Amino acid sequence: MSLRHGRAQVAIPGPSIVPDRVLAAMHRPMPNIYDGPLVELSNSLFADLPAIARTSGEVFVVVGNGHAAWQMAVSNTLRRGDRVLVLESGTFAVVWGEQAALSGADVEILPGSDTRPVDPAAVEDRLRADVGHDIRSILVVLADTATGVRNDIAAIRRAIDAARHPALLMVDAIASLGCDRYEMDEWGVDITVGASQKGLMTPPGLGLVWASDKALAAHERADARVGYFDWSSRRNVEAHYQLYNGTPPIPLLYGLREALDMLADEGLENAWARHETLAGAVWAAVDAWHTPDGLRCTIADPTSRSHAVTTIDTGGIDATAIRAVSEQEMGLTLGLGIGNDTARFRIGHMGHLNPPMLLGTLGTVESALHALGAPIGSSGVAAAATAIGHSIVVR
Amino acid sequence: MSLRHGRAQVAIPGPSIVPDRVLAAMHRPMPNIYDGPLVELSNSLFADLPAIARTSGEVFVVVGNGHAAWQMAVSNTLRRGDRVLVLESGTFAVVWGEQAALSGADVEILPGSDTRPVDPAAVEDRLRADVGHDIRSILVVLADTATGVRNDIAAIRRAIDAARHPALLMVDAIASLGCDRYEMDEWGVDITVGASQKGLMTPPGLGLVWASDKALAAHERADARVGYFDWSSRRNVEAHYQLYNGTPPIPLLYGLREALDMLADEGLENAWARHETLAGAVWAAVDAWHTPDGLRCTIADPTSRSHAVTTIDTGGIDATAIRAVSEQEMGLTLGLGIGNDTARFRIGHMGHLNPPMLLGTLGTVESALHALGAPIGSSGVAAAATAIGHSIVVR
Amino acid sequence: MSLRHGRAQVAIPGPSIVPDRVLAAMHRPMPNIYDGPLVELSNSLFADLPAIARTSGEVFVVVGNGHAAWQMAVSNTLRRGDRVLVLESGTFAVVWGEQAALSGADVEILPGSDTRPVDPAAVEDRLRADVGHDIRSILVVLADTATGVRNDIAAIRRAIDAARHPALLMVDAIASLGCDRYEMDEWGVDITVGASQKGLMTPPGLGLVWASDKALAAHERADARVGYFDWSSRRNVEAHYQLYNGTPPIPLLYGLREALDMLADEGLENAWARHETLAGAVWAAVDAWHTPDGLRCTIADPTSRSHAVTTIDTGGIDATAIRAVSEQEMGLTLGLGIGNDTARFRIGHMGHLNPPMLLGTLGTVESALHALGAPIGSSGVAAAATAIGHSIVVR
Amino acid sequence: MSLRHGRAQVAIPGPSIVPDRVLAAMHRPMPNIYDGPLVELSNSLFADLPAIARTSGEVFVVVGNGHAAWQMAVSNTLRRGDRVLVLESGTFAVVWGEQAALSGADVEILPGSDTRPVDPAAVEDRLRADVGHDIRSILVVLADTATGVRNDIAAIRRAIDAARHPALLMVDAIASLGCDRYEMDEWGVDITVGASQKGLMTPPGLGLVWASDKALAAHERADARVGYFDWSSRRNVEAHYQLYNGTPPIPLLYGLREALDMLADEGLENAWARHETLAGAVWAAVDAWHTPDGLRCTIADPTSRSHAVTTIDTGGIDATAIRAVSEQEMGLTLGLGIGNDTARFRIGHMGHLNPPMLLGTLGTVESALHALGAPIGSSGVAAAATAIGHSIVVR
Repeated sequence: MSLRHGRAQVAIPGPSIVPDRVLAAMHRPMPNIYDGPLVELSNSLFADLPAIARTSGEVFVVVGNGHAAWQMAVSNTLRRGDRVLVLESGTFAVVWGEQAALSGADVEILPGSDTRPVDPAAVEDRLRADVGHDIRSILVVLADTATGVRNDIAAIRRAIDAARHPALLMVDAIASLGCDRYEMDEWGVDITVGASQKGLMTPPGLGLVWASDKALAAHERADARVGYFDWSSRRNVEAHYQLYNGTPPIPLLYGLREALDMLADEGLENAWARHETLAGAVWAAVDAWHTPDGLRCTIADPTSRSHAVTTIDTGGIDATAIRAVSEQEMGLTLGLGIGNDTARFRIGHMGHLNPPMLLGTLGTVESALHALGAPIGSSGVAAAATAIGHSIVVR
Repeated sequence: MSLRHGRAQVAIPGPSIVPDRVLAAMHRPMPNIYDGPLVELSNSLFADLPAIARTSGEVFVVVGNGHAAWQMAVSNTLRRGDRVLVLESGTFAVVWGEQAALSGADVEILPGSDTRPVDPAAVEDRLRADVGHDIRSILVVLADTATGVRNDIAAIRRAIDAARHPALLMVDAIASLGCDRYEMDEWGVDITVGASQKGLMTPPGLGLVWASDKALAAHERADARVGYFDWSSRRNVEAHYQLYNGTPPIPLLYGLREALDMLADEGLENAWARHETLAGAVWAAVDAWHTPDGLRCTIADPTSRSHAVTTIDTGGIDATAIRAVSEQEMGLTLGLGIGNDTARFRIGHMGHLNPPMLLGTLGTVESALHALGAPIGSSGVAAAATAIGHSIVVR
Repeated sequence: MSLRHGRAQVAIPGPSIVPDRVLAAMHRPMPNIYDGPLVELSNSLFADLPAIARTSGEVFVVVGNGHAAWQMAVSNTLRRGDRVLVLESGTFAVVWGEQAALSGADVEILPGSDTRPVDPAAVEDRLRADVGHDIRSILVVLADTATGVRNDIAAIRRAIDAARHPALLMVDAIASLGCDRYEMDEWGVDITVGASQKGLMTPPGLGLVWASDKALAAHERADARVGYFDWSSRRNVEAHYQLYNGTPPIPLLYGLREALDMLADEGLENAWARHETLAGAVWAAVDAWHTPDGLRCTIADPTSRSHAVTTIDTGGIDATAIRAVSEQEMGLTLGLGIGNDTARFRIGHMGHLNPPMLLGTLGTVESALHALGAPIGSSGVAAAATAIGHSIVVR
Repeated sequence: MSLRHGRAQVAIPGPSIVPDRVLAAMHRPMPNIYDGPLVELSNSLFADLPAIARTSGEVFVVVGNGHAAWQMAVSNTLRRGDRVLVLESGTFAVVWGEQAALSGADVEILPGSDTRPVDPAAVEDRLRADVGHDIRSILVVLADTATGVRNDIAAIRRAIDAARHPALLMVDAIASLGCDRYEMDEWGVDITVGASQKGLMTPPGLGLVWASDKALAAHERADARVGYFDWSSRRNVEAHYQLYNGTPPIPLLYGLREALDMLADEGLENAWARHETLAGAVWAAVDAWHTPDGLRCTIADPTSRSHAVTTIDTGGIDATAIRAVSEQEMGLTLGLGIGNDTARFRIGHMGHLNPPMLLGTLGTVESALHALGAPIGSSGVAAAATAIGHSIVVR
């Protein structure tokens, strides 16, 4: 007998749970692609997407995944041999840097830790030392999907400004756009990279790149340009297909439209606040479960944690077993621990998420811990339910 | 800010949560209705349904809801003026009796309680007193959706046998077929009434009636027959449509096929065991929440509770507020308390259900109690998570 | 090699082709059934349905198929022993009468033909002869699904009035409601019976009954009442479920809502006009195909043909072969010829239908005729394409 | 009144009509992306895709559209400054060449016509003249979506061999893979480029590239490599995501699996034969419609036409009006005429297609011609129905 015979719940840090409305919107025959409703829908997406990143800049939609969006950002702004500074804080900025290197960049990594955010002071120091302004771009993530760390982008911008450095600030916000507060224009970001499958509640297959005027100017001097990603052919277009450099990704456009409507109904600020409350419930659970040799959040400082994903170190408990019991016996899939999958797992808490879903996840983890005879301090799901309950103002 | 912006969870005692596979199976164009795949699918359903009620008897599928199935049972076996004995144990057997009365039955209610199951001894006494065997049918529910009580059908059969009474035993198993153990043949039931939308995990719109040979024989003398429901035209049919006395309910047939496949994959006995474990988790939660003036299960004796639905008396706490906060602030819809909606609510835990779903429901109720400042003994969701965890044998 | 590997096309006289929008609307999780959006949706349906039958009378929605709607009409108005006059014009009025007989009616058939509509003069004669007004109800179909004949309901009403007869006029409009013009109030109809799966473009599973005040008054004296169908419990309800006498048929309500919205977008009068044009194209095709021993419309007089279904006599050509080649080799399912399936087939042309669909059907039939080496006068699909083209006023 | 109120039919040359089964398969929640069913599904796709191009070579699946697949082919094999010879035969090979140029290629166009296929003799002449073997790659399309021309790839290979030239032969088969016969290995093709949205019956969003050993060897010397597309990181992978260089395009993988199953059920050779028959019906229709100043196929020689798309020159008839009347009045969307949209339109006849669909399209075009009062020779849809009928061997 297994208890898993219900709706499979997937609490991984993306692809996140896609709302029924979004899946339904994608379930539609192929339309006229020359004019009419599909073209209007595209136009509405390009009109609405800048507000998601809080920018008045331009947006590009690439048929591809997050790595394609990374590539678009790099290929459109890079001159071969340009120095690119990667701000390490886990895994993903470094991988992005490797991609830039393959396109001809001279990549330098500012070493960081996988348990703390980027140190703005170290950024300032490095940039001050770059008196010749060889560094042309700075790559950093808003949140690192591997560790759950959240960087202070505003502080990094202040560090750049303090060093009076002209490099482009390029932020990978894929992991938590729509979940963590993000203010592209206010924070002086030049390029933001996003994707459909996390806080934007749409299946994977769409990459998003927002570009400031400064980024668009950099494009003019770039020589690593790649036809598929090229901004020049995607701006001021005459025919609809040019927006996507080829056939539009029709189902995902329908899906993203529905997801943006849902986000607009809720309000982006409200969505951020919801994620903050629900993330707090996750951390309350982990704190309750904590024992000296047991579970703890990978990122010690709550103010440096993303509201979209939490990475949990399992101490002496076998993370593989927690994941296996949760999935096979109870129908819950947890995120793999990148880098150390036997002593770490991850909980995605992003996008289409409410207390029944999140408390179900936490309760199931707790059941798994009981099933494995693992030590726990006290009930995490009880702590989470309390935190959520106390956040509600009864009207 | 509301936290409800995720997948709405509906934990009412039916319609239960329909598996994605079932909804998907229903999403199909209309087919050839004369021959080919649809006819084969119908045949497979009629072949597989008897095992769901554990009978070798015949099954009828009526396009209609549970009340239609009730009607089919009554109209096919009743002679106007027949005495029908209703075994009260909550709400629904009595309502079924009212329907029988409108069809001409002389209905007598054996009084019961809404907090306890039918007393088999009282049944035996009443039947012994019926020396002339005026009573032709006995109506009883397996589980009462209003109170969550579960009757001991085997014991009722023994009482009837002890009284050597020939009345038909007609059981409404709608509320918990597929959830509570049910053995139509072994328990000597003559007619079982079911419907698609509870443990069978299919949307409402299909009524099911299983009939023993004795019931089919009773049909021969019935004079309350109604064309739409008439068994005679639905047996030994030549054309496919006759199975449904008209156009077949195509989407629901597709859905039921998928649901039965899922149930077969799990195994009916395993499904019963799963429901038993999950119901135990609900009761552990209510026991933990319990305070003298707070929550308690309506049915005091756990051995008389259905594994499909639990009714909770809320004491001094406003059940309406619990339901409102759960739904409006957190996206969880709880069952209305039939008969006393301000001091009672219900949790459906039937069909497509696993720990993430159930613990999500219980955790959300607990959050609602916290939000309302309601007294609770201790964490119910923690108790439920413990109960579930301890039920799992790690392999 | 078969050419059938595309979208299967089903051109049977119901269930008709369900629009993608309707199927998509049905693909939705089960909701709160006590209050909120589902209840509002129900209310909107009950508000909008009277206009579909062109009446200010009341509508009842029964979870069931068309036979259930028949039953509701009969059971709510009949007194056992009442004489019911069935106006024969094919198959279905007679079958309806058989159902009424099982409920206790004394059924008399006014003989008709299966190639002509009911003769109003014969109706008038019969009613004048009924000086004692023994006849309480008159049953007739708007269109007969078997033959494609369309009765002149207004003329039948005039015949009844000419005979000054008080019987209820009950019309089965299932086969062509939404396709053939139908004016319940203007034509003095007392009860209209409909169903979801034809012109209303929704899968089968919903029966519809519209009742005039005179019909509701007849209900007061009825003694064949059946609980499931009973109007008394379905009027002036307090709780939502009472509208359906039990659990609402949720997916079909979603579907019907979408279908009614589509019909409203088009306009009912426009839908009638569209059906008239498309039916004319079918008849043009059959006329072109016609040879002395070949295809012809069963109903000779075009003014007596329904705009929803055409029955075709195939003369010396094997109708079974036409249907088999069309389906197995080309993916088109044609309607079975009721009563003579080797020399008759049917084309449904109702509901969600446009020229690409209809000309595809007609062209495929023509290909089947060629494949079989059957004699044809001239190209039917060419004639149909011409008829459709000439109906269009280019703007 | 408009007649368009049925299922919108889209007969454009891609995205083609997606089977209901494929759309349904895509309508599924996001799964575990680390292991289990999704990984097995990916593996099955990579195992089955080579047979679609008739190769024993390797396949790459890129999240992107056809232009992304073009890019992958070019970026992985090109050294900056390499000469690339584009074989013109309409529009798309030239556009592919422009993309290669942006990546650093020295692109030369072998001039062709937009009404005839590539001349193999001209290819041989040009290659013989390239005594230094400066030309490294030859780009050609199997079918040109703009004109409907089909190139003789085997003959082009023979021309290359006759010139004893070592250049890579790269074929864009996007427009008709699965429709036109295509034998990658037998014809000595080094790289085949495909996409999901045409003969593969899946929505747009997946690019496909098949590579021979020779192409993989060329990758070793390429210096225009782009991280996102890079073959090196996509071969011999350890983790599932590496197959897609990032998050897998989950819904499209589900869809493609279903589409490949459908194609396997039919058999690829049978699918080719079906397309040949249906294309012949289209041409029979155009031939019948033809008048001196009226419609004709853009490609005069039937043996040089693709079986997936037909481009029609409309002579003195306004193609815009034909398309407008078809869509607005009848619900049929025709393909835009690339290059001359007022005197040319296109009919896509690819993928999920059977006689009801195709004859519906042709009949509707004929109705549009009648509506516009345009001259036609004789009935095209009649000719097409005849052609199809005569192709069927009645069993």
